[in-house]
Amino acid sequence: MPLLKSWVASANNADHPFPLNNLPYGVFSTNGTEERCGVAIGDSILDLAAAEEAGLVTVCDIPVFDVPYWNDLMDLGSEAWDALRARLTEILAEGSADQAAAEPFLVPMAEATLHMPIVVSEYTDFYAGRNHAFNVGTMFRGPENALPPNWLHIPIGYNGRASSVVVSGTDIRRPWGQLKSPDQELPAFLPCRRFDLELEMGAIVGTASDGPITVQEADDNIFGYVLLNDWSARDIQAWEYQPLGPFQAKATATSISPWIITKPALEPFRTDTPAREFELLDHLKDCGPMLYDIDLAVTLAPEGKDATTLAKTNYKEMYYSAAQQLAHHTTSGCPMNVGDLLGSGTISGATKPERGSLLELSWGGKEPISLDTGETRTFLEDGDTLTLTGAAKGDGYTIGFGTCTGTVLPALKDPYAR
Amino acid sequence: MPLLKSWVASANNADHPFPLNNLPYGVFSTNGTEERCGVAIGDSILDLAAAEEAGLVTVCDIPVFDVPYWNDLMDLGSEAWDALRARLTEILAEGSADQAAAEPFLVPMAEATLHMPIVVSEYTDFYAGRNHAFNVGTMFRGPENALPPNWLHIPIGYNGRASSVVVSGTDIRRPWGQLKSPDQELPAFLPCRRFDLELEMGAIVGTASDGPITVQEADDNIFGYVLLNDWSARDIQAWEYQPLGPFQAKATATSISPWIITKPALEPFRTDTPAREFELLDHLKDCGPMLYDIDLAVTLAPEGKDATTLAKTNYKEMYYSAAQQLAHHTTSGCPMNVGDLLGSGTISGATKPERGSLLELSWGGKEPISLDTGETRTFLEDGDTLTLTGAAKGDGYTIGFGTCTGTVLPALKDPYAR
Repeated sequence: MPLLKSWVASANNADHPFPLNNLPYGVFSTNGTEERCGVAIGDSILDLAAAEEAGLVTVCDIPVFDVPYWNDLMDLGSEAWDALRARLTEILAEGSADQAAAEPFLVPMAEATLHMPIVVSEYTDFYAGRNHAFNVGTMFRGPENALPPNWLHIPIGYNGRASSVVVSGTDIRRPWGQLKSPDQELPAFLPCRRFDLELEMGAIVGTASDGPITVQEADDNIFGYVLLNDWSARDIQAWEYQPLGPFQAKATATSISPWIITKPALEPFRTDTPAREFELLDHLKDCGPMLYDIDLAVTLAPEGKDATTLAKTNYKEMYYSAAQQLAHHTTSGCPMNVGDLLGSGTISGATKPERGSLLELSWGGKEPISLDTGETRTFLEDGDTLTLTGAAKGDGYTIGFGTCTGTVLPALKDPYAR
Repeated sequence: MPLLKSWVASANNADHPFPLNNLPYGVFSTNGTEERCGVAIGDSILDLAAAEEAGLVTVCDIPVFDVPYWNDLMDLGSEAWDALRARLTEILAEGSADQAAAEPFLVPMAEATLHMPIVVSEYTDFYAGRNHAFNVGTMFRGPENALPPNWLHIPIGYNGRASSVVVSGTDIRRPWGQLKSPDQELPAFLPCRRFDLELEMGAIVGTASDGPITVQEADDNIFGYVLLNDWSARDIQAWEYQPLGPFQAKATATSISPWIITKPALEPFRTDTPAREFELLDHLKDCGPMLYDIDLAVTLAPEGKDATTLAKTNYKEMYYSAAQQLAHHTTSGCPMNVGDLLGSGTISGATKPERGSLLELSWGGKEPISLDTGETRTFLEDGDTLTLTGAAKGDGYTIGFGTCTGTVLPALKDPYAR
C-alpha cells in the first residue's frame, strides 16, 4: 500500500507519523475546552465531537465522541470500528467532497493537550520478550537456568494496577518503598534507589469476552496498540516479589502514548512470531502473523540536557503476540472487558544496544552506561526524561506512534506529611 | 453495647444475623424489578431507593440508592456514611416516629434476589494469615524455610482480576488451564484437577487516595467487610506462578457475600493483631486494635447431600489488618479508588480443623479428609457446594455476615466450542 494522500497537506509526507494511512485515535482538549475524542491527521486533529455534532461523522446513530475516552466507540463492536475508519478515510482523502465541511473541525496539534485515550478497565503486564526474560534470568539464576520452565509454553504475566496508568507527559514521582540492602539484615522504608524504565507496547482490548477464546478471536478483539513504559522499582521488587510476584514495585506508574494506533493501520506490517523451541499447545498456536514490524527506541535526557538513545529494538522481538497473551488470559474463564490494557513485557533485542531496560543495559547496575552528555547511568536519576518512540515504515509512508514520555521527579521528603 | 431493639420484630433475636446493631448494605431486586440498594433488618430489606424517593432517607440531597451499587454512597465520604447509619438507626428503632412511613418499604428477604453490592474497581488479594502462609510454605519448602524472608515485614499481596469477582450464589465453572503433572515432561491443557477454596474476608475501600497513607488513614478509608472465597486452581498455579505470581489460577472467580458489614457495626469487636516477631517499620505499625473478633466457618456439601464443616477459624488469626494491607498498597504512590476490594488472604487457625483451604486440610492432597457423608476429599469435586459464614457475637446480639456460597460446575467439554 502506498501513501494515501490527504487534503491536510502536512499528512502527505513519507516521514510524518500521522498520514491518512494511520488515523490514530486520541483524546484532546484545547485551552478551556472539554476533553473529547479526535483523530490525528498530519499536524492537526480532527475534532470528532464537533464533527459528530455537525452530522459529518456518525457511528450507529449513537453519540460516542463527546466523552474523554474511546471506550464507547469500542463498545459498538468491530463493524462500527471499520465503518468509522472508512468514513474518516473518505472525509480526509485528497479530493474529498467533505473537505469544506470538515475543515472547520481541524485543530492544530500544537494547540492541543493530549489526555488518556481510554478508561483503563484492568491492566495486565506480560513478560513475553525472550531476550529480556533471558537477560533478567541470567542475572539472577545464570544462563543455564535463565528461562523458567514454563516460559516457552505460556506467556507469563501478572495483573497490574489500572489506577496507576497515566498518559505520556505525566511526571513520575520516584516512589518510596520497603527494601532490603544486601548488606543489611533488616529492611528499611526508603526512596527507591534502582528506578527503571521498561520499553513495551500495550494492546487495548476493544471487545469483551466471557470464557476461553482462541488466538484468532483474541486478535479480532484487540482494538489497537500504544507505546508503554512500565516504570519499575527494582529494589522494591527484589524484596517483595517472592512468592506472589511484583506488587508495589510496579504500582507507581505506567505511562502510555496518547494515540491509539489501530489494527488496520498496522495490517501491512504483520509478521510472524519467532521459531518455537517447543511446539505451543493448540490453544496458543499461531494462526497467522500476529506480531508487527515496528521500530522502537527509547532516549534518556538528563535535566536540561540533550537526549541519548538508550536502546533501539523492534516489536517483532516478542516471543508471544498480544493475541496469544489475550487468549492465554482467558483460559481459566477470566472475563475480559472493553478497555483492558495488556503490556507486552519489556522488548529487548539480542544485542546490548537493543535492551529495553536499564536493568539489562547496566547489567543489574554493575556496568554503568555512558550518555552522550558524558554522564553515566546505572538506574534513573531525578530529572531524567525518558521518551519512547515507535514507527512502522511503509512504502513511502510511516505509521508513527508519537511519543511516550515522562520525567522522574525527586521522591517526596516525607510521604506522610500532610 | 446491648441488642438495639427494632420495630421489625424478627431483628430482635440474639442469634439473628441482622439486628438493628448491624444494618448491612446490599443490592437486591424482587421479581421483575430493577436492582437497587437496600439495608437488611431482621428478615426484611428496607428498600432504600423507594425510601429515598419518598423523602424518608436522604443523603447530601443527592440520590444514591436507585442504582445497583453502593459506590455512589461511598463516594460521598465518611460523614455521609455516618449520617446514613444514624438516620437508619432512627427510622428502624423500636418506637420510631418513622415506623408507619417506613413499613411500606420493607421487602421480605425471602422474596429478594441479592446482587453484587458494589462495582469492584480493582481487586487485590493478600497472603497475610500466618498459619496459612506457614502451612503452604512448609509443604513446599519445609518448616524452617516456610515463611519467605519478607513475610514478617510486609503484607505480601498480588493484584487479582476485578472482572472475576462474583456475588454469592453464582455457580463456579471448573476451569481449564495449562498444567504439568510431575510425571510428565511437558505441560498439557486440561481441566483443573486440584480446584480449591480459600476462606477469606474482603475489605472494601470507600475513600480514594492518591499517594502514601498511614495505617490510621487506611482504616478510616475502609467502608466495610464481606466474606470472600478465592477459588484457586492449585495445579495451574503450581505451573504458572514462577516468577511473577498467580495469574490464571486465581482468575476463574472470587465469590463475595452480598451484604457489606460496615465498620461501625464491627466496632465493638475490634481486637489487636498478634505479637510481632519483628517490630514493624513505622509506616506499617499498628495504631490501635484493627482486627476484629469474627467467627468464620466453611462447609462443603456434595451434590444433593448434607454439608460437612470443613473448618472453623476467626478473623483475628490475621497477622496484618486490612488497614495495614491498604497502607502498604499505597506506599509506592499507587492510587486507590472507591470500590477497590482487598482480600485478606486465607485465614487458618493453628490446628487442623481451623485450616481455611483444602490444600492445607489435605496437606497438598496427600491426606484426604472425611466428610460426614462418608465420602472423602482432597480437592473439590463437581457438584460440591461451598458455604462460608461469619458472625461476631455481642452481648445478646449477633453481627452476622450472611453466607458466601458457590457450587462447582463441571468443566466445559470443549472450551473452544461455539
